[in-house]
Amino acid sequence: SRAQGCEGKVLTVDTMNANVKKVEYAVRGPIVQRAVQIEKELKEGVKKPFNEVIKANIGDAHAMGQQPITFFRQVLALCSYPELLDDNKFPEDAKNRARRILKACGGSSIGAYSASQGIDCVRQDVSRYIEHRDGGIACDPDNIYLTTGASDGIVTILKLLTTGEGRTRTGVMISIPQYPLYSAALAELGAVQINYYLNEEKCWSLDIDELQRSLEAAREHCRPRVLCIINPGNPTGQVQSRQCIEDVIRFAAKEHLFLMADEVYQDNVYAEGCAFHSFKKVLFEMGPKFSSTVELASFHSTSKCYMGECGFRGGYMEVINMDPEVKAQLTKLVSVRLCPPVPGQALMALVTNPPQPGEPSYAQFIAEKTATLNNLAQKAKMTEEILNTVPGIRCNPVQGAMYSFPRITLPERAIKDAKGQVPDMFYCMKLLEETGICLVPGSGFGQKEGTFHFRMTILPPTDKLQTMLRKLKEFHQQFTQQYS
Amino acid sequence: SRAQGCEGKVLTVDTMNANVKKVEYAVRGPIVQRAVQIEKELKEGVKKPFNEVIKANIGDAHAMGQQPITFFRQVLALCSYPELLDDNKFPEDAKNRARRILKACGGSSIGAYSASQGIDCVRQDVSRYIEHRDGGIACDPDNIYLTTGASDGIVTILKLLTTGEGRTRTGVMISIPQYPLYSAALAELGAVQINYYLNEEKCWSLDIDELQRSLEAAREHCRPRVLCIINPGNPTGQVQSRQCIEDVIRFAAKEHLFLMADEVYQDNVYAEGCAFHSFKKVLFEMGPKFSSTVELASFHSTSKCYMGECGFRGGYMEVINMDPEVKAQLTKLVSVRLCPPVPGQALMALVTNPPQPGEPSYAQFIAEKTATLNNLAQKAKMTEEILNTVPGIRCNPVQGAMYSFPRITLPERAIKDAKGQVPDMFYCMKLLEETGICLVPGSGFGQKEGTFHFRMTILPPTDKLQTMLRKLKEFHQQFTQQYS
Ligand SMILES: Cc1ncc(COP(=O)(O)O)c(C=O)c1O
Ligand SMILES: Cc1ncc(COP(=O)(O)O)c(C=O)c1O
Repeated sequence: SRAQGCEGKVLTVDTMNANVKKVEYAVRGPIVQRAVQIEKELKEGVKKPFNEVIKANIGDAHAMGQQPITFFRQVLALCSYPELLDDNKFPEDAKNRARRILKACGGSSIGAYSASQGIDCVRQDVSRYIEHRDGGIACDPDNIYLTTGASDGIVTILKLLTTGEGRTRTGVMISIPQYPLYSAALAELGAVQINYYLNEEKCWSLDIDELQRSLEAAREHCRPRVLCIINPGNPTGQVQSRQCIEDVIRFAAKEHLFLMADEVYQDNVYAEGCAFHSFKKVLFEMGPKFSSTVELASFHSTSKCYMGECGFRGGYMEVINMDPEVKAQLTKLVSVRLCPPVPGQALMALVTNPPQPGEPSYAQFIAEKTATLNNLAQKAKMTEEILNTVPGIRCNPVQGAMYSFPRITLPERAIKDAKGQVPDMFYCMKLLEETGICLVPGSGFGQKEGTFHFRMTILPPTDKLQTMLRKLKEFHQQFTQQYS
Repeated sequence: SRAQGCEGKVLTVDTMNANVKKVEYAVRGPIVQRAVQIEKELKEGVKKPFNEVIKANIGDAHAMGQQPITFFRQVLALCSYPELLDDNKFPEDAKNRARRILKACGGSSIGAYSASQGIDCVRQDVSRYIEHRDGGIACDPDNIYLTTGASDGIVTILKLLTTGEGRTRTGVMISIPQYPLYSAALAELGAVQINYYLNEEKCWSLDIDELQRSLEAAREHCRPRVLCIINPGNPTGQVQSRQCIEDVIRFAAKEHLFLMADEVYQDNVYAEGCAFHSFKKVLFEMGPKFSSTVELASFHSTSKCYMGECGFRGGYMEVINMDPEVKAQLTKLVSVRLCPPVPGQALMALVTNPPQPGEPSYAQFIAEKTATLNNLAQKAKMTEEILNTVPGIRCNPVQGAMYSFPRITLPERAIKDAKGQVPDMFYCMKLLEETGICLVPGSGFGQKEGTFHFRMTILPPTDKLQTMLRKLKEFHQQFTQQYS
């Protein structure tokens, strides 16, 4: 056995971690790689039927020109270079926030490692934010873990929950369409992915019957233990109703499932009549029978909402009803990686403790935040409206988050011509080559057999988004004609 | 089977990921938790035989009062709040660096996600730095991956390499004493830890005979595929000779092992006659027989050296001779977490592309860097000298890194009195309670059966370090007396 494999590389695709091989990640897949190539070609002067690539493939607001919140960046600059604390150009409230954060850092430097669970005073800010958000329901800072983006928290909780072999292997229920971090993490951990389908006909709502169906089918071959929900939804842009959340909690309690609530878009709600209801709040409003038993982890991030600060990799999770011994294990586990990035923690402190009425930066903060959210709401509406004028494209209302996930009708002949390529990948690749528009095919997120979609962010600036939607309309009409 | 476990929690220590349970992490273990508690008690006015806790348990320079490099923080402030680019207070070279970094960011904001492998121009800076460090040996930016601290890179490579079951399970050779990230990651991944012992009698050097012994023993029960080296060493503070590195590479080639070189302390070399030799450089100097075959991953970090910027979680790895298909898998894998923190990437750009002669910030940069490294060298020497004046403590020279790992002789009766507690844990806990000094017991890093050690950083300010060493001396003498 020693001689075997002694030639060639130690590490090959045949001798590497098989779970890693199974991981798929469409948001940065072949379409995006080709888009990067095309950008290079354009720079080198290669002639194309367009002048620039428009990236509507990823929820990255700043990359699409959204401006950061001034106050946040002032405090971050002060924390980075505290000499600026003597500078009159910075408002007093920004300085106070910076002083408070620095005081909580080892050696008063954001260059020191923090406690692994996160800086104490930041966890306190987070817990007050949650209490305020949820109408006063208590939040214990001990239940808050700061993370390296929400991604990190989600993977960490899934890791804790993954165990067993064969038919006792942990099964994790995720919505289809899904955000592909989930399928990727499950593949990597070797957990069993259990698909439940969102109801496209009812605006991507979540049916308890469908949860029940998928759970029962899964029980034949694994041990379902976790139910993941993304609300507001990525890639589908829906906002779940309070009633639906209550039903989901009841279902989790009845079926003995650990709930993971991905609530990174909690400020991104646009549609009339929709509101964000946190799982935590609904759980506690359902009374002690539920609030003292149902295990819940909820995730938030600095990457989304009105701030869109993706590059800082700030995030937190709140764990509720977690077994104290497991919590100790969680704390130990996160300590191995030392700590989440401190600038991201500082940013999370600002997101959860922004300027208050009466403070010098309040008016500007509110103006910037409101403008960004209003702009997103307007683009959400515009996207839905324009897409629905195209025969062969049908788009649910973009109630929240940053995406539309329209269904597209593809002619039979296009499906044939795709020659084994997934048809919506074929469609999106052609769209990219002909128009420079970069979208992600629906197949990257999962979709009902025989249906096709793409995901498009609503993040490009209004005029660019409008141009893009017009081009997309033309493309779709031409594509349909060509293959009919 | 459904009813089973339907009472009580979904997630308990009995139903959680068993690998996670096996993880141990001493650097933030019970001693440190007790130290945090004691700090709180002191604040609350509880009387103790000391006024403050001195933390010499973790390599966190800023927390111990080391000042950041001015230039680095200026650029980070400019990147955070680009309005400052109009401010005359900032030197031109800082502004140019900030402009260059911002230009490479989506939407010119460090709040945008970067490419998953890291920002292009930062990877170019890193590659030029490596070429310069290694006397001109070529470095391809495509082989550079930016990471969330070195920790992230190390775990990612170990993950790729872990495969097989039972006797074919991947075995990973690590030095004992080790930095406990390694044992923790191996436990989590379910890989087999293979211990090779550093030679304490020869200043913690690495003997090829010992590598051979441990490899052969391991082949009885797993498939050894990886050899990890930390140079300069944590926790042992040694700097390996060029000859030793060559021998290790030869050994890896002969035994078909993937090499992981943890070189995060590459600037931290203090002892006369010692120098840092990168594995990459030695590999290429050994000629194409080795340089075109031996697979190597090397890790670096913004956390150590003269900058000590731990909180930013900046890091990179260079992969050499990695199978292209595996590299594609690696790129896919890192894309799931989107990207490393962008401020940490910016910092890595500065570390690898600092002010150059002729630029306005050059003189101050060199002065600050030199002062910090000289100060560390002086404290390394002082630590060794004072510890070696204590009967029952024997300390190897602190040739590099930031730690001493002295051997302590514990009286028989102390070992008995520890009552099942590991004796050096008993010793360190008593030290903490009586003097406020926080060290990590040797058992947290691994040590030869029957020997006892502690790890102490050399990071406290000189006067505090001196006081600490004096107190430690008194404590050791008293402890020895008490238990003799
Ligand atoms: C639903 C959802 N969860 C989690 C994340 C991860 O975000 P981050 O890791 O940047 O916080 C995203 C990012 O797009 C997301 O859409
Ligand atoms: C040998 C060694 N490797 C890796 C690390 C991880 O450092 P970071 O993740 O902060 O880059 C450390 C930190 O102390 C270390 O000592």
